Amino acid sequence: MELLNYMLRFIEEDAPIGDITSLLVIPDITCNAIMTAEQDGIIAGLTEVSTLCSHFGITVKQDAEDGNLVGKNDMILSLSGDAKKILLVERTALNIVGRMSSIATQTRKMVDIVSSINPHCRVAATRKTCPGFQIFDKKAVQIGGGDPHRMNLSDGILIKDNHLALVPLRSAVRTAKNVSVFKKIEVEVETSDDALIAATAGADIIMLDNMTPYQVARTIEVLKREGMRDRILIELSGGITESLLINYAALDVDVISLGFLTHSVCNFSVNLEIVPDNNP
Amino acid sequence: MELLNYMLRFIEEDAPIGDITSLLVIPDITCNAIMTAEQDGIIAGLTEVSTLCSHFGITVKQDAEDGNLVGKNDMILSLSGDAKKILLVERTALNIVGRMSSIATQTRKMVDIVSSINPHCRVAATRKTCPGFQIFDKKAVQIGGGDPHRMNLSDGILIKDNHLALVPLRSAVRTAKNVSVFKKIEVEVETSDDALIAATAGADIIMLDNMTPYQVARTIEVLKREGMRDRILIELSGGITESLLINYAALDVDVISLGFLTHSVCNFSVNLEIVPDNNP
Amino acid sequence: MELLNYMLRFIEEDAPIGDITSLLVIPDITCNAIMTAEQDGIIAGLTEVSTLCSHFGITVKQDAEDGNLVGKNDMILSLSGDAKKILLVERTALNIVGRMSSIATQTRKMVDIVSSINPHCRVAATRKTCPGFQIFDKKAVQIGGGDPHRMNLSDGILIKDNHLALVPLRSAVRTAKNVSVFKKIEVEVETSDDALIAATAGADIIMLDNMTPYQVARTIEVLKREGMRDRILIELSGGITESLLINYAALDVDVISLGFLTHSVCNFSVNLEIVPDNNP
Amino acid sequence: MELLNYMLRFIEEDAPIGDITSLLVIPDITCNAIMTAEQDGIIAGLTEVSTLCSHFGITVKQDAEDGNLVGKNDMILSLSGDAKKILLVERTALNIVGRMSSIATQTRKMVDIVSSINPHCRVAATRKTCPGFQIFDKKAVQIGGGDPHRMNLSDGILIKDNHLALVPLRSAVRTAKNVSVFKKIEVEVETSDDALIAATAGADIIMLDNMTPYQVARTIEVLKREGMRDRILIELSGGITESLLINYAALDVDVISLGFLTHSVCNFSVNLEIVPDNNP
Amino acid sequence: MELLNYMLRFIEEDAPIGDITSLLVIPDITCNAIMTAEQDGIIAGLTEVSTLCSHFGITVKQDAEDGNLVGKNDMILSLSGDAKKILLVERTALNIVGRMSSIATQTRKMVDIVSSINPHCRVAATRKTCPGFQIFDKKAVQIGGGDPHRMNLSDGILIKDNHLALVPLRSAVRTAKNVSVFKKIEVEVETSDDALIAATAGADIIMLDNMTPYQVARTIEVLKREGMRDRILIELSGGITESLLINYAALDVDVISLGFLTHSVCNFSVNLEIVPDNNP
Amino acid sequence: MELLNYMLRFIEEDAPIGDITSLLVIPDITCNAIMTAEQDGIIAGLTEVSTLCSHFGITVKQDAEDGNLVGKNDMILSLSGDAKKILLVERTALNIVGRMSSIATQTRKMVDIVSSINPHCRVAATRKTCPGFQIFDKKAVQIGGGDPHRMNLSDGILIKDNHLALVPLRSAVRTAKNVSVFKKIEVEVETSDDALIAATAGADIIMLDNMTPYQVARTIEVLKREGMRDRILIELSGGITESLLINYAALDVDVISLGFLTHSVCNFSVNLEIVPDNNP
Repeated sequence: MELLNYMLRFIEEDAPIGDITSLLVIPDITCNAIMTAEQDGIIAGLTEVSTLCSHFGITVKQDAEDGNLVGKNDMILSLSGDAKKILLVERTALNIVGRMSSIATQTRKMVDIVSSINPHCRVAATRKTCPGFQIFDKKAVQIGGGDPHRMNLSDGILIKDNHLALVPLRSAVRTAKNVSVFKKIEVEVETSDDALIAATAGADIIMLDNMTPYQVARTIEVLKREGMRDRILIELSGGITESLLINYAALDVDVISLGFLTHSVCNFSVNLEIVPDNNP
Repeated sequence: MELLNYMLRFIEEDAPIGDITSLLVIPDITCNAIMTAEQDGIIAGLTEVSTLCSHFGITVKQDAEDGNLVGKNDMILSLSGDAKKILLVERTALNIVGRMSSIATQTRKMVDIVSSINPHCRVAATRKTCPGFQIFDKKAVQIGGGDPHRMNLSDGILIKDNHLALVPLRSAVRTAKNVSVFKKIEVEVETSDDALIAATAGADIIMLDNMTPYQVARTIEVLKREGMRDRILIELSGGITESLLINYAALDVDVISLGFLTHSVCNFSVNLEIVPDNNP
Repeated sequence: MELLNYMLRFIEEDAPIGDITSLLVIPDITCNAIMTAEQDGIIAGLTEVSTLCSHFGITVKQDAEDGNLVGKNDMILSLSGDAKKILLVERTALNIVGRMSSIATQTRKMVDIVSSINPHCRVAATRKTCPGFQIFDKKAVQIGGGDPHRMNLSDGILIKDNHLALVPLRSAVRTAKNVSVFKKIEVEVETSDDALIAATAGADIIMLDNMTPYQVARTIEVLKREGMRDRILIELSGGITESLLINYAALDVDVISLGFLTHSVCNFSVNLEIVPDNNP
Repeated sequence: MELLNYMLRFIEEDAPIGDITSLLVIPDITCNAIMTAEQDGIIAGLTEVSTLCSHFGITVKQDAEDGNLVGKNDMILSLSGDAKKILLVERTALNIVGRMSSIATQTRKMVDIVSSINPHCRVAATRKTCPGFQIFDKKAVQIGGGDPHRMNLSDGILIKDNHLALVPLRSAVRTAKNVSVFKKIEVEVETSDDALIAATAGADIIMLDNMTPYQVARTIEVLKREGMRDRILIELSGGITESLLINYAALDVDVISLGFLTHSVCNFSVNLEIVPDNNP
Repeated sequence: MELLNYMLRFIEEDAPIGDITSLLVIPDITCNAIMTAEQDGIIAGLTEVSTLCSHFGITVKQDAEDGNLVGKNDMILSLSGDAKKILLVERTALNIVGRMSSIATQTRKMVDIVSSINPHCRVAATRKTCPGFQIFDKKAVQIGGGDPHRMNLSDGILIKDNHLALVPLRSAVRTAKNVSVFKKIEVEVETSDDALIAATAGADIIMLDNMTPYQVARTIEVLKREGMRDRILIELSGGITESLLINYAALDVDVISLGFLTHSVCNFSVNLEIVPDNNP
Repeated sequence: MELLNYMLRFIEEDAPIGDITSLLVIPDITCNAIMTAEQDGIIAGLTEVSTLCSHFGITVKQDAEDGNLVGKNDMILSLSGDAKKILLVERTALNIVGRMSSIATQTRKMVDIVSSINPHCRVAATRKTCPGFQIFDKKAVQIGGGDPHRMNLSDGILIKDNHLALVPLRSAVRTAKNVSVFKKIEVEVETSDDALIAATAGADIIMLDNMTPYQVARTIEVLKREGMRDRILIELSGGITESLLINYAALDVDVISLGFLTHSVCNFSVNLEIVPDNNP
């Protein structure tokens, strides 16, 4: 679905029968409005908000681009148009930019930490997103320099612990490998033995879940010894906090995925201020 | 829209053409699954997840009720049914419970702080929610003992600073008051002078925005002096953090609204574990 | 949902696979069309029909504004554009204007009767609307000078007889009052005793249902005696016909709600005439 | 679209975020409810309301069938189920039955008048319906013994005055006739000359619009003289009120269509009363 | 539903979260593109594809009109606009034109065969279409000069063998005839006896199903003998292949319907080639 | 979107206001119905049709499984339920099974040809599907033993000729490779030089488009010489007909994709016969 359609749902959710306050007190006038950052960080969501505003006939000028580093009080969007329409989209627009910028900022920070230590290692998100906003969460990660990972359950093959509670590891990987010509096969494992089984069975990506740095190192060693390391990508996941990140990034791994990028998001503060239109 | 319809959209967002991994590797079997809390707090979202699971033919037993205080490792939901269906809803279910429980837990904490100081003062949310999930965010606040405030722009009249940039305070309130028989009129003001104007013009609720505790106290004094205090409700809003809350709660106010309840949410950790079904 | 989306549903309902007659016999030409009132009254629905026509690329000039008093044969809308598009929307447009103008005209008449007797008393609608057209019915009432009352079940708290068949009056009002900071509490009662209980329990609005004028007067007296009259709004409802209205309006009441405004609607006659376009 | 889907839209329109009163004051209990006619007439809409109630898990017993003649205080539906669900659908259900029964009752009356004079002549509706409720309006006409006529613009070919303002009568009919093998061609004319042209060109149905009974008689005579009468159906339309109906019905015509059947509808009064459930 | 809405569903089906390749590798540039026929035949679908492209802001020039005979390498559409948008619609556009042109071409061929033998006999389609594309299949038949027959189940009355397994022929036709003033009644029969019963009962169209040419001729004879032939239309259907067509067309029939027009479709080959834009 | 939702759209497309024939002539009775194959082949679509029938309350027994080889006159589905519901879904059900079985049968045939020559080589579909039915076309290919290839534009990265008209090959592959950790990169090339560039730049799959068998062999030789053959998958595409297939399958390739599997589909003949229910 086009992102605009998602955003029109947001407006419908927030105004099922319209913005009753504005309909009551605001006359048919035009006005300007300025969206401003209230903190430093990577701004995101401006493309989306511009699309949303344009849909409602509001003229938009982007004073920054998604992915820019902005500072406190920097103007990021200039709007002009029908006052009631601007008031209708105001809060939704701020919520979109606020959450996406927070995610982008947090992602950039983690990417910087990881790449300073291990330039080949990527930072990825998980599917621990806010339902209804998942595709925006993923896009914000991209803007922050991270990898969105699977966009959704239809988007990639990832055999996880809950699959493996039901089917044996080796046969699951082989089944997937036999059937899937066009997609990589990723498997989540918790031991180096399983990592080796998965690699041998043909997995393209091995996700080492909830391992200590030592266990990861050991697992990589095992894979190297068996000549498997170069044929696969290694992803780390599970409980990796910002403070632990540095320890994991130092290892010979390809991707580190971090749930908190999207499941624990502190609002990035943005503000929208209406400026009366002097030229009616 | 019924909450179920929102949740079906979440599933469609997360599986536009199905869960390709499960379709590939999981046979047509049934299984059980247990959802467990991984931390202490107020659990929320169980009613919603039960509804969602039932829709997909999964049998659900709630081991806790929304609003219960749960502890680490407490079972909260027991599922049983088609394995592929359980795997299809797993992540969405966890994301719903994770976010809602976090909001409920945070709200309960703030409600406890406020009511220990001022039993008559309520804690309320704002519309700084995650787009697409707003109604769930609001419900989580209620489960935590807070007031959801306006559910959306159609749900209440709140004249804010951006309205007042375009129309004069007194006439905005009077217009609204004249037209609106069935709804309360709320106005956001930033000075005690404006608070008095709003009250005199007939506002039912005055939101004092971004005031220091001292300014709030002064404003209440002014309203009392003019015999207006008892005819209105007083709400505080704007930049009230957890650490400041105690200072504001000690004042003679009716409601304190806190944006961070819904705009800054750290995931409440929950886990779902599949258990193979021994009795096919 | 935006009103346009409702109207697009109307068009889809009336032309699920298009207007087959026009597709068959009308070439690709443009034309003009004039919508004319065929009787006197308050016109309504022109804003909506203009929005609908614009969506289909038809140029619209409003020759009257919603709420205007129009006379027989007055032009109200001038359209110009693709002939097949005008023919596609013709009947839906006429049906919208016909029903809305009828409601607005009838409402205005009742408002005039009431306000000539009791300038402080408002006329309100009920939810006895045509399903699928409810929001248009409510808007037509507003255009006629009436109060739309609750727009829908999500829009206000109104404890009615069927609630009170299940829960006691006093506790219902108190529960609602305790929980609802931001919304007025309205209660429907049938006796003066219940009116007093409701007022004492904290209701903001008391709807006296199906009372004779004498019973209403008695109830107001009771409320006054207890010092409650000025703290509440009094609404009358139930079986008040046009001929009885004068008796009720003379009482000290705040609102009279009339089901027939929207449940018994005789079409306001409007006509649309196509005029061939002389300047191809 | 299935009728149920239309009705779910009605519920969503009337409760975009639920029935907030019932959610507030009604506990999780079941109850019974009785729908009763408050006047005499032909009842309609019971099938639809039963379907709607069933969707929400409410058990329904129909105490009457659509098309039955019911009397004042007759029970028509018995419901039992979750109290909050019954309260959610209550008003929508009453509005559906109220409007449909009114249309059915009015239609039956007109059918009785016409058929007492001219047993071969049918009564039909027009597309002057309430947008959003069109298919229910048409069904109500059928229940009353009338012909729904075109269900919508996709459903039949009817060349009207506004088509004939743009294309010549003879060629319009011929074009339609040449192309349309499977559908009858109907044409609206205002003179006997045009009636003859239309018949000669191959029209299957001639609608005589806004003619006096004398003009109709003359036109039929002309058609007979030319040997055309038996090859076509004759429909009368335009401004035929109940009092004039008797004059038109006496003529040798096949169908009389009446706009007022659906555009001027006075509510048929029905009531729903909740009865507490004694067996919890 | 408007055709555009169907096509937007096609795009959503083909790009639920966008065209990930183009988003990855194509910069924000404009380009031109040429759609070319790769074989001879009747082109169709250009109107639809133009509407689709315009919706996405792509400028379209039609180099041919629907229904034109085009030759190999003929340009049929010229597009220009945002490169990513053109790549987004490319395959859907080609699929629409490919299938519709194939149907139109095949239909034209059959129409030419039939009309060379029997100028009064029409070629019609059936409902053996591709689900989801039915209305486009029907339109393609029209472009090829065929009759679309019933567009869908709501569009005409056709009593088939499976109805007649449940209700007797004569009463089915009579019921339908009595109720249906505005629609023709068509009946499918397999014997000349049944054809006569159907005609006598008042059917407007008799579909002779799966008869040999000899059986058809005999049936017509019977109908003629009874004076029924001129009061009905005769349609042939069932297993008529291209090679048999000539035998059936020679008979005195009105319509021949051919399932293979839409159920057995070999792609009409069209190609779209991107041309870089030299004037940025 | 769940497949059921697609099928409900098909029903809505085919019966926007219901099946008017059945509503007219069929009483409220139940019946049985048998779906039978009228030719030999691989049956497909039974799972889907069963789901659809169940949704409408029809009891279904599958007499064959998707992927089974069935013969002429074999029963494949037994239905029982409300006669009008069965008649409502009849044609849609037949169209689904007819098209899907045809595709599955054709696919199986090609798979058998290829695997008899080259057991390691897979047969794949393209996106040359019928819009609105794409996901069913892809599923039918799978049932026939083929690979569905990309399900849609969101599902895999495939850099095609039209991308390469706008961006250079090497940089396109590198950009994609750098960004895409979790997905394979496929590139379409037309020369052995480009194949080598693509492989060197890191492509995972090389699609050789429109090459003769000789050119393919030469290209593979070049890739082998450079040590690239084993690191990539080789896919052939473009103009490979059934008669040419044997020549291409003999080469050292991994996948052959065939547009005709889904763009040129001759209906697989299936029939549904209603059997009156003897036990009312």
